Amino acid sequence: MSLRFRLARTSDLPRLVHLLADDDLGVTREEASDPLDQRYVDAFESIWSDANNELVVVERDGEVVGMCQLTFIPYLTHRGSWRCLIEGVRVAREARGEGVGREIMTRAISRARARKCAIVQLTSDKQRPEALRFYELMGFSSTHEGFKLRLDPL
Amino acid sequence: MSLRFRLARTSDLPRLVHLLADDDLGVTREEASDPLDQRYVDAFESIWSDANNELVVVERDGEVVGMCQLTFIPYLTHRGSWRCLIEGVRVAREARGEGVGREIMTRAISRARARKCAIVQLTSDKQRPEALRFYELMGFSSTHEGFKLRLDPL
Repeated sequence: MSLRFRLARTSDLPRLVHLLADDDLGVTREEASDPLDQRYVDAFESIWSDANNELVVVERDGEVVGMCQLTFIPYLTHRGSWRCLIEGVRVAREARGEGVGREIMTRAISRARARKCAIVQLTSDKQRPEALRFYELMGFSSTHEGFKLRLDPL
Repeated sequence: MSLRFRLARTSDLPRLVHLLADDDLGVTREEASDPLDQRYVDAFESIWSDANNELVVVERDGEVVGMCQLTFIPYLTHRGSWRCLIEGVRVAREARGEGVGREIMTRAISRARARKCAIVQLTSDKQRPEALRFYELMGFSSTHEGFKLRLDPL
């Protein structure tokens, strides 16, 4: 399998939003309209301009079949070490079960090492049992509870 | 209770490392030496110089009795919304059980709103049952598993 990893470009944005929306949980919370909701464009620009955020895509035969976002965070804890937070790992429906997710994670961990991170972390929705098993297979330990609080606009 | 919140300064660093080390889990992984390990100083400077990271301390009667770190992250998911990640919430041993933690969280959530975040998130070690109950009381839902992978230096 020949995969090519690169940073996402503005021209990838419709495809990326499609990947996010074409998902059991994402279908209710994303909107792959044409033209795209300006909030996606704004978020992309914020990610792009932040040296500690990388939106990575993976191509197979010239087509984007996966994505993830890496955030590098400096902390005092663990003797002042950096961490890599992984979020928004998605594989296109037509490319699932072929090891693309594993390649994305392997690449993300390698990138975290290059950025001198001591810990890689992520949270995964408890409604995704296959994803939970996948992360354990990748060597992650579910030592923590992942808490979320949605802020409703005041 | 009169608490004062502000950004951490370099001169707070020994006190902050003491707070991190004076903890059931932190005792084995932090080192409150004098002079301080340079890695804490480097991490502090990285946090300070990043507009999307805020290391917050809380003072009572002129003494730092608590801390937390906020990271503001732009994401494509949830229609291009920002999130606030909370990490390293600590309350000094002598100030526990007096509502300082609740004040820190209330202030963090308020700061997340001010930064236009749609979601506040954090992970908490499953070995801290009291912390888990505390975050549920603060309105957080443990919808996610929190996975960690420690990278050993190659």
